[in-house]
Amino acid sequence: MASNSFGSFFRFTSFGESHGPFIGVVVDGCPPRLPFTEADVQPFLDQRKPGQSAFTTARQEDDRVEILSGTYEGVTTGAPVCMLVVNKDQRPGDYDSIKHSFRPGHADYTYSVKYGVRDPRGGGRSSARETIARVAAGALARKVLGEKVQIRGAVVQLGPHKIDRAKWDWQETQRNPFFAPDATAALLWAQYLEAVKKEGNAVGAVVELHASGLEAGWGDPVYEKLDSALACAMMSINAVKGVEIGSGFALAAMTSDQGQDEMRRGEDGRPVFLSNHAGGVLGGISTGQDVVVRFALKPTSSILMPRRTVNEAGEEIMIETQGRHDPCVGIRAVPIGEAMLACVLADAKLKAKALL
Amino acid sequence: MASNSFGSFFRFTSFGESHGPFIGVVVDGCPPRLPFTEADVQPFLDQRKPGQSAFTTARQEDDRVEILSGTYEGVTTGAPVCMLVVNKDQRPGDYDSIKHSFRPGHADYTYSVKYGVRDPRGGGRSSARETIARVAAGALARKVLGEKVQIRGAVVQLGPHKIDRAKWDWQETQRNPFFAPDATAALLWAQYLEAVKKEGNAVGAVVELHASGLEAGWGDPVYEKLDSALACAMMSINAVKGVEIGSGFALAAMTSDQGQDEMRRGEDGRPVFLSNHAGGVLGGISTGQDVVVRFALKPTSSILMPRRTVNEAGEEIMIETQGRHDPCVGIRAVPIGEAMLACVLADAKLKAKALL
Amino acid sequence: MASNSFGSFFRFTSFGESHGPFIGVVVDGCPPRLPFTEADVQPFLDQRKPGQSAFTTARQEDDRVEILSGTYEGVTTGAPVCMLVVNKDQRPGDYDSIKHSFRPGHADYTYSVKYGVRDPRGGGRSSARETIARVAAGALARKVLGEKVQIRGAVVQLGPHKIDRAKWDWQETQRNPFFAPDATAALLWAQYLEAVKKEGNAVGAVVELHASGLEAGWGDPVYEKLDSALACAMMSINAVKGVEIGSGFALAAMTSDQGQDEMRRGEDGRPVFLSNHAGGVLGGISTGQDVVVRFALKPTSSILMPRRTVNEAGEEIMIETQGRHDPCVGIRAVPIGEAMLACVLADAKLKAKALL
Amino acid sequence: MASNSFGSFFRFTSFGESHGPFIGVVVDGCPPRLPFTEADVQPFLDQRKPGQSAFTTARQEDDRVEILSGTYEGVTTGAPVCMLVVNKDQRPGDYDSIKHSFRPGHADYTYSVKYGVRDPRGGGRSSARETIARVAAGALARKVLGEKVQIRGAVVQLGPHKIDRAKWDWQETQRNPFFAPDATAALLWAQYLEAVKKEGNAVGAVVELHASGLEAGWGDPVYEKLDSALACAMMSINAVKGVEIGSGFALAAMTSDQGQDEMRRGEDGRPVFLSNHAGGVLGGISTGQDVVVRFALKPTSSILMPRRTVNEAGEEIMIETQGRHDPCVGIRAVPIGEAMLACVLADAKLKAKALL
Repeated sequence: MASNSFGSFFRFTSFGESHGPFIGVVVDGCPPRLPFTEADVQPFLDQRKPGQSAFTTARQEDDRVEILSGTYEGVTTGAPVCMLVVNKDQRPGDYDSIKHSFRPGHADYTYSVKYGVRDPRGGGRSSARETIARVAAGALARKVLGEKVQIRGAVVQLGPHKIDRAKWDWQETQRNPFFAPDATAALLWAQYLEAVKKEGNAVGAVVELHASGLEAGWGDPVYEKLDSALACAMMSINAVKGVEIGSGFALAAMTSDQGQDEMRRGEDGRPVFLSNHAGGVLGGISTGQDVVVRFALKPTSSILMPRRTVNEAGEEIMIETQGRHDPCVGIRAVPIGEAMLACVLADAKLKAKALL
Repeated sequence: MASNSFGSFFRFTSFGESHGPFIGVVVDGCPPRLPFTEADVQPFLDQRKPGQSAFTTARQEDDRVEILSGTYEGVTTGAPVCMLVVNKDQRPGDYDSIKHSFRPGHADYTYSVKYGVRDPRGGGRSSARETIARVAAGALARKVLGEKVQIRGAVVQLGPHKIDRAKWDWQETQRNPFFAPDATAALLWAQYLEAVKKEGNAVGAVVELHASGLEAGWGDPVYEKLDSALACAMMSINAVKGVEIGSGFALAAMTSDQGQDEMRRGEDGRPVFLSNHAGGVLGGISTGQDVVVRFALKPTSSILMPRRTVNEAGEEIMIETQGRHDPCVGIRAVPIGEAMLACVLADAKLKAKALL
Repeated sequence: MASNSFGSFFRFTSFGESHGPFIGVVVDGCPPRLPFTEADVQPFLDQRKPGQSAFTTARQEDDRVEILSGTYEGVTTGAPVCMLVVNKDQRPGDYDSIKHSFRPGHADYTYSVKYGVRDPRGGGRSSARETIARVAAGALARKVLGEKVQIRGAVVQLGPHKIDRAKWDWQETQRNPFFAPDATAALLWAQYLEAVKKEGNAVGAVVELHASGLEAGWGDPVYEKLDSALACAMMSINAVKGVEIGSGFALAAMTSDQGQDEMRRGEDGRPVFLSNHAGGVLGGISTGQDVVVRFALKPTSSILMPRRTVNEAGEEIMIETQGRHDPCVGIRAVPIGEAMLACVLADAKLKAKALL
Repeated sequence: MASNSFGSFFRFTSFGESHGPFIGVVVDGCPPRLPFTEADVQPFLDQRKPGQSAFTTARQEDDRVEILSGTYEGVTTGAPVCMLVVNKDQRPGDYDSIKHSFRPGHADYTYSVKYGVRDPRGGGRSSARETIARVAAGALARKVLGEKVQIRGAVVQLGPHKIDRAKWDWQETQRNPFFAPDATAALLWAQYLEAVKKEGNAVGAVVELHASGLEAGWGDPVYEKLDSALACAMMSINAVKGVEIGSGFALAAMTSDQGQDEMRRGEDGRPVFLSNHAGGVLGGISTGQDVVVRFALKPTSSILMPRRTVNEAGEEIMIETQGRHDPCVGIRAVPIGEAMLACVLADAKLKAKALL
């Protein structure tokens, strides 16, 4: 049941409902003496903030973070770090029409079955606002990882449209509203998503994350493999239904001579790999190559089109969500995925130190 | 570091190396009063046993399980259940030629970096023999789930060749050496794999698992979602590099009206779903529909073809594995995946009872 | 490292420093549908509040709790319950004179060694104000336990002066400022403590807790015994240095025929015990008798008498605490101990349900 | 429920029943590259072995340990270390007369209530033979701690008879059958225990443990204090009903100026303490002084005297245990307590390394 925490060493606990007064997170296990202030968190929260373009929900979430504990004079003390974000733009009224019905593909139904009580204010804990906690924790995890480790993400597929990997440009992810690493794709996506939005519909997406600057030797056999932890982390993000590491599902179609990364001696005497199908992880332990993770998000369940469902009374009804609407939740998942990646790696880094 | 255990309530701990005297598992948290003897475990071990056809390794593993503790007169007592399987066909000599080298795509390298010491006898803990522990634990997990819950698996892709889902026949998975649910595909795969084997090569595969007869309400938000636990479980299996739930990555290309499962009123008054893109899980909690999981395995790193690598001394060498060789480890992953699915569900079932 | 949480099922995480803006707690794993509002917490916070008599610190802690999450319309939803208490009467200046010195018997020194950084504002996390989090969590734990379970505590020894157990009267614990169950002892203690306070000194105490109305069968062998959990819980309270269950240390001097509780058939056919030396726990599992726990607190390290110590520079100095001063912290430990007992039992109750 | 494991980093899982084929333990999280063979374990098992004098049970337990996994060529590899001890001298017949009755003060009753099934063979998991697992794990924990850390134990009270602390001599604990550090007390105890044994009775005891050579900074606030972990560890040992750290319960009677350990500058510039009432732990973190723990054991419930009880049918009966009989289980608790202390410290040492 105690399921609102993530990680073992670098462990965070999230709390707060979409339309309650706050979303908050407590990070326990953060090492002392790391410089950390609100200014280290805010940019990442701003990235996930909706309403930044025509392509994310118009809900105004002016998400200002406040650090309540765990730092003294701008430095972590080893005590638990609590961060809060006030929920400002609450419109519980928006949800009145659906509060006794189950949106297809939404957790409304399963929460009702499990808990026998339902917080109708915007999905309660199943809302995407919970991910604020993850992003805030991720900002602190980056401090644990230090400046040598770089974590970046991109949307590589939006609906049926994939990027052209030959055009990959990390800079470009900061220039378009889709975190697309391919400018041409971004143009196409804008048109496509406009049409999807117009019909009140939504689409899925695929996000890809890279972590570079890692050491070899992080992660543990057999059940706490680094890739197991990553799979768990990414699958816990709202709407995610698939995770792959390195070449992932494509490896199923490869033969060993195609899919295994050969090694040569590097200039510093240490092994270098000639490819990275493994996504930086062998036997659950980091190789020192970039860790590469990809995850698929399904389209949101809150759309403006009428859908067949039932209500709490068991009656068959049509439902359509009113008000604000997000045509592709996958876009905002980039900073969330990055944060979860940072948290998994920070945890692995601390664990690796305890080997004596 | 303590990473050789899996699960929280129904929790198992695995031990033993590929070429040590035993592979063993201790299951802690098993409820009392369940009938359980060696006869409940052996059939599943026999399924994963290699050497059963031309298409799995010829190593003779006569894996007889023995229950050492936790039962009395054939019934569980609530005490930890220890099961041991003797390692009979040890041939440490087989590995002499590679014991100071790193196989491309193998955990040899990362274990060396992490531990600074290496058990050269067949890969030690990273060997596929460790999965005996999982299969044994899974047999007990099935008892916890009871007879209403049915868990089945199939290989749905072998190398580049997928099954035809229109021909899906669960019976067929018991008739061919590939656990293929499509007899036509099985014929093609036999030919294809023969050729792969002849060149000393190997291929990847995709396995699909179904659990039916479940209750709604198992699994927990937000970080212990049922699908997060499944992703973690499957990704922990040797050679797995991708996991998806329900329609998985295909959902990224769908719009909401295509990809969300609508509901109607069932004959018993409870909701029924008109499709199962969600794979039986919404918001991390079971819907009562079949749980559907798919995972991709990369081809094995132990092949008879020469490959470029380095040795412990940092010298560039060519390596090729001698002796027994498994052209597709994905085939034997079916009973292993089933076992992990059973363990995740047993854990979720017990957890769900503690809600008061 | 992640050490600011307690419990496994009913699990709470505490955060906040003595002189930061808030003390807070997040309870994860609380079952849904329990009525719970601030009014259920406040009375327990008021009990632990200092400044209520001449015998506890004069610091004015107007500790108003606010529930931020996890309830809807006064009922728990299964989501994490966050409770905050604002720190109002902060006087960081009080600590200026000691902020680079180590009080004898205080965590100042060990925190400095461990973290290499120190939050000088009133002891940071080692302050007794952290126990607000415990008391708030305990109030919710009582809801999980339900009305049949009664949890009560008393001070049974103050300095060298023990109560007369023959005079035990639970009502009396609510009438005197010491939670003493013996009115005569309370009179003596008042005189004694007045003298201790006058010399700027302080004393230790022993607290005894009783839980009644329990079911048999809570708690688990072998390493999560109910009495192990209680020992851990009580020893985690500031200043506690000893814990015993039932007759505790006195059992060492007894023979088996004296110290083992014989059984007879009760009126309802179930066994009744003829004594309770075991304190309600056998083999780590509750017997259904009252659970009885006792713990010893050392005298506080913050006193107005000069003491020999060193400072951060390693110089030998004399130290004496200025300002507010608590002559016996053991008195306020009664509601804290009760809260920890409630949390341990709530956790055990939920766990016991998962046996199938 | 999964309650047969202890520790977080250095984590062991115990299995096996008193009269099953084996008692075993799996230690997960043991660092690699530690020399470790059966010869490192056997001496500690021999210490706890019964039948060594007239004062412990005559059961012949020729407890030979075998290491099954986790080492290669006498050195730990980082893989889980499994150790097994065969149960040789099983006499299930001894228990026939009591297998449907509840011994006063024994876990018979609570196991029956909890599990609804009972392994009558010698108490199953509640038997003292389970402690073999602890002693074996403790031997490995000592390797983690290294040679600078010394762990020793002694019986300081046997029944009502305490040692004279002025006569404390660690050498003496190896010379008499009681682990008594006071030769005069040992003589008295021999006479006393002879009488107790003759009447078929048994007595309790108090054991004291010291760990020296520790670093400051081990242990964690607030709920995983080093003393909390110690209290939990000791209270989990069969028959233990009280635990204290340092001066323990005696601190309740002291004033601050008596009970707090003053500090001066040591020769190496670091602080030295002028006393050790705190038992080496302040704020849950080690000070570097000796860690001192004391625990009380109740007399065993298996005695040769008739006692009033009930049986499973609810009938009132008299019970007396037949056969072998241990007049003071506290004696054999010395190596068990030492082992638990070693495990707690090894865990704390590894955790402390993960602070970055």
